[in-house]
Amino acid sequence: MTTGRLEAFSDGVLAIIITIMVLELKVPEGHTLSALRHTTGTSLLTYLLSFIYIGIYWNNHHHMFHVVDEVRGGVLWANLALLFCLSLFPFTTAWLDETHLAQTPVVVYGIDLLAAAVAYFVLQSVVIRVQGPHSALRGAVGRDLKGKLSPILYLCGIASALAFGGDRWGVWLALGFFVVVALMWLVPDRRIDRHLRQAVPGRPGRESAG
Amino acid sequence: MTTGRLEAFSDGVLAIIITIMVLELKVPEGHTLSALRHTTGTSLLTYLLSFIYIGIYWNNHHHMFHVVDEVRGGVLWANLALLFCLSLFPFTTAWLDETHLAQTPVVVYGIDLLAAAVAYFVLQSVVIRVQGPHSALRGAVGRDLKGKLSPILYLCGIASALAFGGDRWGVWLALGFFVVVALMWLVPDRRIDRHLRQAVPGRPGRESAG
Amino acid sequence: MTTGRLEAFSDGVLAIIITIMVLELKVPEGHTLSALRHTTGTSLLTYLLSFIYIGIYWNNHHHMFHVVDEVRGGVLWANLALLFCLSLFPFTTAWLDETHLAQTPVVVYGIDLLAAAVAYFVLQSVVIRVQGPHSALRGAVGRDLKGKLSPILYLCGIASALAFGGDRWGVWLALGFFVVVALMWLVPDRRIDRHLRQAVPGRPGRESAG
Amino acid sequence: MTTGRLEAFSDGVLAIIITIMVLELKVPEGHTLSALRHTTGTSLLTYLLSFIYIGIYWNNHHHMFHVVDEVRGGVLWANLALLFCLSLFPFTTAWLDETHLAQTPVVVYGIDLLAAAVAYFVLQSVVIRVQGPHSALRGAVGRDLKGKLSPILYLCGIASALAFGGDRWGVWLALGFFVVVALMWLVPDRRIDRHLRQAVPGRPGRESAG
Repeated sequence: MTTGRLEAFSDGVLAIIITIMVLELKVPEGHTLSALRHTTGTSLLTYLLSFIYIGIYWNNHHHMFHVVDEVRGGVLWANLALLFCLSLFPFTTAWLDETHLAQTPVVVYGIDLLAAAVAYFVLQSVVIRVQGPHSALRGAVGRDLKGKLSPILYLCGIASALAFGGDRWGVWLALGFFVVVALMWLVPDRRIDRHLRQAVPGRPGRESAG
Repeated sequence: MTTGRLEAFSDGVLAIIITIMVLELKVPEGHTLSALRHTTGTSLLTYLLSFIYIGIYWNNHHHMFHVVDEVRGGVLWANLALLFCLSLFPFTTAWLDETHLAQTPVVVYGIDLLAAAVAYFVLQSVVIRVQGPHSALRGAVGRDLKGKLSPILYLCGIASALAFGGDRWGVWLALGFFVVVALMWLVPDRRIDRHLRQAVPGRPGRESAG
Repeated sequence: MTTGRLEAFSDGVLAIIITIMVLELKVPEGHTLSALRHTTGTSLLTYLLSFIYIGIYWNNHHHMFHVVDEVRGGVLWANLALLFCLSLFPFTTAWLDETHLAQTPVVVYGIDLLAAAVAYFVLQSVVIRVQGPHSALRGAVGRDLKGKLSPILYLCGIASALAFGGDRWGVWLALGFFVVVALMWLVPDRRIDRHLRQAVPGRPGRESAG
Repeated sequence: MTTGRLEAFSDGVLAIIITIMVLELKVPEGHTLSALRHTTGTSLLTYLLSFIYIGIYWNNHHHMFHVVDEVRGGVLWANLALLFCLSLFPFTTAWLDETHLAQTPVVVYGIDLLAAAVAYFVLQSVVIRVQGPHSALRGAVGRDLKGKLSPILYLCGIASALAFGGDRWGVWLALGFFVVVALMWLVPDRRIDRHLRQAVPGRPGRESAG
């Protein structure tokens, strides 16, 4: 079974998640800038953060299935588990907004981030196990520093919100951790691309097949 | 007429159904864990159940059209009938949540599950009839034990809710039946995959063509 | 420019239109069958009607682009005009429901149906003009009896609602006309398919190319 | 990395944006034409304007990636930035409607248009830089008169609304500028197509490959 339809379905779900979050942006009650600021509050920023996160997951998903040629049962369900965690983003982001970044919603948002990271790691592991000893994905992932660092930073964010969230700065510290993870994934993608391009000659993948 | 666009359209509809259900999750009124528990109630669990059901249908749909090469009129409409039944899931799931799993909504949810199973069976039959005496799908489906058992279990669930739904445990028994069907489809997929892989050499399908 | 992305985009839009209509189904206020009947009213039936209409348009769109190989500017915009008319279905259907099938909303619904039919006819004409004197689509369309009969029946429906809509039966007559058009497109598709299959040897189209 | 999945994902997001705007159309409270006029107001027209804008962006996006063969990191993020700006259209359009085209929402709408134009320009520049000195996109874009004129007209619209928006005609002047840009992109597409077709023989692109 080829990966075409799994990728198409995942693209569809991710495209919908990333877009329906805009439906949670409340239209300001009034026609002034202060109405915009009052109603929208921080929700444009949290929408941007969640948008970037979904974008990162789409990007990584895209890269991962670039070196996958075959789909078997376990991969389908691990992929659905990842999509489920990501599908909760509109919900957790909306709660964040409506409570003006209160402590518990920030913790729940962090747990959703953590769950998605774990689901992604499980999906990656299932694919590597299915691919067997000469897994192309294992080679592409390498030591997976960012993949290992992210959950730790999420946990730091959750812990900050739990410990100091009564004060506002505990919440901001937590969100700072989440932003740092996003930036970490945004920035050095180019290095991986270069590595992939160098490896193309000897790498079993879809490019060489197509 | 090849199956490409029918699969793409079905993927799109299923991706939207599975994702917009999250819009039915009410954002908690308050910023505490108890507000989350009070407002969200069991809706995270019913969302998960419906998510898994749509995932199972996508998975089976994916497998079915793997051994279909040609689409004719009847298949298109049987497929649309299936999509219609599945498109009601956000509605029936939302009613389930808002009534905190009351008797009638549980029965209606069961009827929707049953209708989708019947529509799937009809689609399968139409495809087999179109494929003629050497139908590849008939071979892949085999005795279709799970396909025959599912409607019976749905009926058991509906009957439980009707007979004992005045008491809470009647409702839980009904939901138990629905969960059992979902687990039944989740678990032994691997066996079918193995069977399919063994059968690949002599099987007419898209893999051998592509 | 090939038709791939235009078809994918149209599939996406149609899949979303057909699915988000379910979001307009109000969840019953109460947990009884009579609450379901009271709140949902006729909206399940109008949802089904609109679902079938979008399904018919998707089906016809699918058939049309089967004999189109190249897309140029005019086709893109004619296609977008069709999608715009169809995208209003969730809106016109919702108004129909909330007013319990009142006169004006039925007229507006009919106008939307008529507008979509006109847009489809324009799209078809643009494609035929672009294809030139040996247009494959012109051959496939033939005398286009159904395409010419549909707008007339829509106009009959609109006129019925305008003339007799003060009485309930005028509204029902109008809806009857709309249902008849839907049935007309649902039923004899098989004949066209057969015609297409017979014509395949000498027909320039995508099948012969792929 | 080929452009297939990036195009599919973008198609998905654009299809959803263009369609969910219809969810912002309020269903009239009442069953008369005047209720329709009162509730819907200008929102059908602003929906049409935003629909056409998304259509134009989809069309241009379609043309752009027609001469792109390879996707690298920077292109992915520039594309996501464009999608983010476009994803705000349902929000800015809804604010426009609910305030009956008040001054500030018109300015914000113009800023969103401007942001999308800038994001598109950035995406175009990133692609040209990635393609190197013999960029096929640079040749196709040419002097890019329309691309340079559009932001100027958006700025004129924003300035009109800021300067004269207290009077109603300032707002209408601003919307006039936005409509002019849309018409500018709608009309002379045919010239570009002809230019592209003439250039096909010597042009490196996907058509010559496929």
